[in-house]
Amino acid sequence: MGVNENVRKPLDRLSAALSAEMEAVNALIRARMSSRHAPRIPEVTAHLIEAGGKRLRPMLTLAAAKLLDYPGEYHIHLAATVEFIHTATLLHDDVVDESQQRRGRPTANLLWDNKSSVLVGDYLFARSFQLMVEPGNLRTLEILANASATIAEGEVLQLTAAQDLRTDEAVYLQVVRGKTAALFSAATEVGGVIAGAPDDQVRALFDYGDALGIAFQMVDDLLDYGGATETIGKNVGDDFRERKLTLPVIKAVAKADGAERAFWSRTIEKGEQREGDLEQALALLARHGAMEAARADALAWAERAKAALQVLPDHPIREMLSDLADFVVSRVA
Amino acid sequence: MGVNENVRKPLDRLSAALSAEMEAVNALIRARMSSRHAPRIPEVTAHLIEAGGKRLRPMLTLAAAKLLDYPGEYHIHLAATVEFIHTATLLHDDVVDESQQRRGRPTANLLWDNKSSVLVGDYLFARSFQLMVEPGNLRTLEILANASATIAEGEVLQLTAAQDLRTDEAVYLQVVRGKTAALFSAATEVGGVIAGAPDDQVRALFDYGDALGIAFQMVDDLLDYGGATETIGKNVGDDFRERKLTLPVIKAVAKADGAERAFWSRTIEKGEQREGDLEQALALLARHGAMEAARADALAWAERAKAALQVLPDHPIREMLSDLADFVVSRVA
Repeated sequence: MGVNENVRKPLDRLSAALSAEMEAVNALIRARMSSRHAPRIPEVTAHLIEAGGKRLRPMLTLAAAKLLDYPGEYHIHLAATVEFIHTATLLHDDVVDESQQRRGRPTANLLWDNKSSVLVGDYLFARSFQLMVEPGNLRTLEILANASATIAEGEVLQLTAAQDLRTDEAVYLQVVRGKTAALFSAATEVGGVIAGAPDDQVRALFDYGDALGIAFQMVDDLLDYGGATETIGKNVGDDFRERKLTLPVIKAVAKADGAERAFWSRTIEKGEQREGDLEQALALLARHGAMEAARADALAWAERAKAALQVLPDHPIREMLSDLADFVVSRVA
Repeated sequence: MGVNENVRKPLDRLSAALSAEMEAVNALIRARMSSRHAPRIPEVTAHLIEAGGKRLRPMLTLAAAKLLDYPGEYHIHLAATVEFIHTATLLHDDVVDESQQRRGRPTANLLWDNKSSVLVGDYLFARSFQLMVEPGNLRTLEILANASATIAEGEVLQLTAAQDLRTDEAVYLQVVRGKTAALFSAATEVGGVIAGAPDDQVRALFDYGDALGIAFQMVDDLLDYGGATETIGKNVGDDFRERKLTLPVIKAVAKADGAERAFWSRTIEKGEQREGDLEQALALLARHGAMEAARADALAWAERAKAALQVLPDHPIREMLSDLADFVVSRVA
């Protein structure tokens, strides 16, 4: 889920507009990732947090609060909370996926061990709960606790739904909400709630984050099969080799004849992959227009994200968020 | 940290006194460990939760609330929260320790896999945060969030402090607070807070839980070297073989001469263990009176637990809690 170079411009504009707030978030993150007793904690956390993630999620919280002229300081806590939840999730994901690289560097489970990744992840989860309690706002607590449950549930669902050809688009959407969109929508929603926005605006912020997160993940999954256009810096076929059922394959499986179904069953369900199978998979995706259909879905979600913003006040930040939705899908447009 | 048969009586009396509340806690746990989308979650959770743990921690919350005549229903939520945090911790512990057995049954990481244990543990953490938000009480939220952070920090500390002969009694106490006492003290404290008890009573409940948890873990660590008397159902020497620095060894290392230090360094720090080393370790513990000294510490913590209760109202539950402290150390008395 790395953010491609193509989205740099709107992200940079958001970064610039929110630079003072982002600096406060970074200071808070550094302060709270420390541990008086266990130096292993800041070592592991710093490795990941300072590896140059783009801080997209906390920025969404800051953007939502600023767009609604929130005069207080608790959006900083909430943004740091969101980044801690994200970082904890990455640590545990890398253990579960047995990953070796993250953001171009060796993963923590490789540099230290799985134990450290599991336990430091738990520490960051706990720290995130401490942070989210501080604003004393029960509604933001509820939103973030619910998002945490949705994330974990989505991860477990992915564990069991992967490699199962019965996985349909509804299950895919649930997995995507869990792994990506739940934290995006919580990030934008809590920004609105802490700003005291009326219900329709809070709902709009939720819808924007939800749709943006879904578009973001769909694009990521498309790029794994090469996307609709040429792209850079992504290995084609990782998901295929890891037997993950993502949107393009789900669409192709839905239209498969008997021989094609046997192919998907052998390669994805049974994991018996041979030389030339990826090329065959790409040919089947092309035959059924699966890439185009998945691309259309991603673009539609980006449009939904932009449409949700209409309820919100006219504001330069609103335009940047709208542009951000376009840029997220520009990688496959 | 299994509860020995010797403590059955006070636990049984508490169970009987709190049976209606405990039934409500169990019903809430069953309702919240479900998942609409991911059946793997209740499978894994049921395996652990229904394996016959004694529910000691949630019972502490219920006991504290009842002792203070709390008329509401939120102690049920808080007790279930405490059990969920405990269960999540066990799932992750078994991954970290590569355990094969828990409560006499194969561990979840063995029956399913490490991935499921990590992710279902995360789900239970998230569920515990949802549960703890529901009473709408910020102070109990803060206590439970802080306890979660202390637990995770203690686990990381144990990871780095194990196998390091410089680990002293202060570090040991921090590890013990993390792995055991933090959740005991949070369990009793939130029971008092939700009942609206005055500060001195809340403090007393915290102190009781803290001291009880420390005594409990010290006894567990003593029994690993055979305890002061004969005991049943525990393999002597597990901690030694796993090179864990617990109180008896820390006390013996503090009094070691050069040759003894070399022995501990070889067996614990370097992990080069041979036939006869456990016997030699036991002889060194005996030579320096380390078992007796550790036993005296455990008894002193049990006395501290009982003393803390004096601030609380006279009540049959108070007597049961006092007896519980005696029973916890009766395994080594």
